[in-house]
Amino acid sequence: MKIHRSTFRARYAETDAMGVVHHAAYLPWLEVGRVDLLRATGVPYTSIEERGFLIVLSDIQVRYRSPARFDDLVTIETRLILLKTRHLSFGYRVLVESTGTLCVEARTDHIVVSRSSMRATQLPADLLAILTPWVSVKD
Amino acid sequence: MKIHRSTFRARYAETDAMGVVHHAAYLPWLEVGRVDLLRATGVPYTSIEERGFLIVLSDIQVRYRSPARFDDLVTIETRLILLKTRHLSFGYRVLVESTGTLCVEARTDHIVVSRSSMRATQLPADLLAILTPWVSVKD
Amino acid sequence: MKIHRSTFRARYAETDAMGVVHHAAYLPWLEVGRVDLLRATGVPYTSIEERGFLIVLSDIQVRYRSPARFDDLVTIETRLILLKTRHLSFGYRVLVESTGTLCVEARTDHIVVSRSSMRATQLPADLLAILTPWVSVKD
Amino acid sequence: MKIHRSTFRARYAETDAMGVVHHAAYLPWLEVGRVDLLRATGVPYTSIEERGFLIVLSDIQVRYRSPARFDDLVTIETRLILLKTRHLSFGYRVLVESTGTLCVEARTDHIVVSRSSMRATQLPADLLAILTPWVSVKD
Repeated sequence: MKIHRSTFRARYAETDAMGVVHHAAYLPWLEVGRVDLLRATGVPYTSIEERGFLIVLSDIQVRYRSPARFDDLVTIETRLILLKTRHLSFGYRVLVESTGTLCVEARTDHIVVSRSSMRATQLPADLLAILTPWVSVKD
Repeated sequence: MKIHRSTFRARYAETDAMGVVHHAAYLPWLEVGRVDLLRATGVPYTSIEERGFLIVLSDIQVRYRSPARFDDLVTIETRLILLKTRHLSFGYRVLVESTGTLCVEARTDHIVVSRSSMRATQLPADLLAILTPWVSVKD
Repeated sequence: MKIHRSTFRARYAETDAMGVVHHAAYLPWLEVGRVDLLRATGVPYTSIEERGFLIVLSDIQVRYRSPARFDDLVTIETRLILLKTRHLSFGYRVLVESTGTLCVEARTDHIVVSRSSMRATQLPADLLAILTPWVSVKD
Repeated sequence: MKIHRSTFRARYAETDAMGVVHHAAYLPWLEVGRVDLLRATGVPYTSIEERGFLIVLSDIQVRYRSPARFDDLVTIETRLILLKTRHLSFGYRVLVESTGTLCVEARTDHIVVSRSSMRATQLPADLLAILTPWVSVKD
């Protein structure tokens, strides 16, 4: 329940001349994963922006284990692995559905920023309360 | 039935500094539309490539009517509007689900190419026979 | 002199599983072409936005003639082919430098929009005066 | 001399709805950096592929410090920070030219793979000999 799964197909535009999904194409996939997880919690990212906050990426680590290919049905497993008032982190696994092959493991770290001042700020208590049950300890 | 509908959400990575989906991001969406239509016919694009053919884009026309935004649920309506032994064309409409707003109308023309020679060639008769009932006259 | 030339190399990220530059990757190239042309006229696009205008794409037509490949040095030849108070159009040719091969011919049409109202508006007379000598009749 | 510098402008297509360059857009920039460094050594990446090798990305770490914006002239500083027979690593800094602001620090790790077998293999001695003087110890 704390793992959110997003499933879609790898697009031709996401492949490269090696015949596999280009490494940069996984970053928008991870973004889909965390946007979908946030929607599942009841705090869609659009509502966070409407309340005057941005969740800005500060660090990303990606380990590429096995390539995904055009038309593969892939699943992004996303978990909220750290939640503080000023920053949060997500963990990800990207899998090819048909074979269960693990393509990518990743982690992203984010800072809470005020849209008006563009400075680091705190998430309000009500949003923290909604997100807290979603925190999953093991990476 | 001759119109195939693909539905997914606009990704943050697909937006630009105008706050809307960047015009180039629609091309991979159209590609998803025609790949999904081909899968629905029973002739997935991967099987066309496996049989030694490429469906190469030769022309594209896109009319941008209204912008899609981050997280919008969009539907790509795709139709096969021309089918010859050596070339085929698709027509598209991109709509925002929540409002029914028409974002984009587009047409793509394609040439059948042999993977081995990289020259124009003909689609085999059995594939033409499967695709023919999907041709939709009105653009 | 009315043709502006932008030259850069095709990126690996811009290729696809066919081993050539993906068709969608040309759209950001055309955008580089027109941004560079505007800078050359003395009216950089950033200054147009600072003055409260957006140049919004309304139509694009691309003819794909021959593929560019990874690491090809490509030149985008851009011309301003139509200039009205409310809309303007650009014409493009994309060439591979080493061989002179024509990859793509394209045309984009744009509408002048007010950033504050997001409605169609007119370019101010001083900008029109600067841009007018750059209009090139033949496509 | 062991640092290679690639300079180009941020494209509009690379921005997102936050008004800055989207985090995923830096990955193709890093790729441009290492491709340019390899060309500077006299071992262009195309020649590595022609000799039957792929340099496959296995890990990436990116720290985002400050955003780049549309039309910023950015410099990618690339260094070869590890060179073994079977793997190599690059370090990067992305800077905005006009202000000297550091946008991004990054590291990528790569595995040498045979194009024919798609298995890990060794770089040939002559390529190692050319690349060795370019190794730069400090990250």
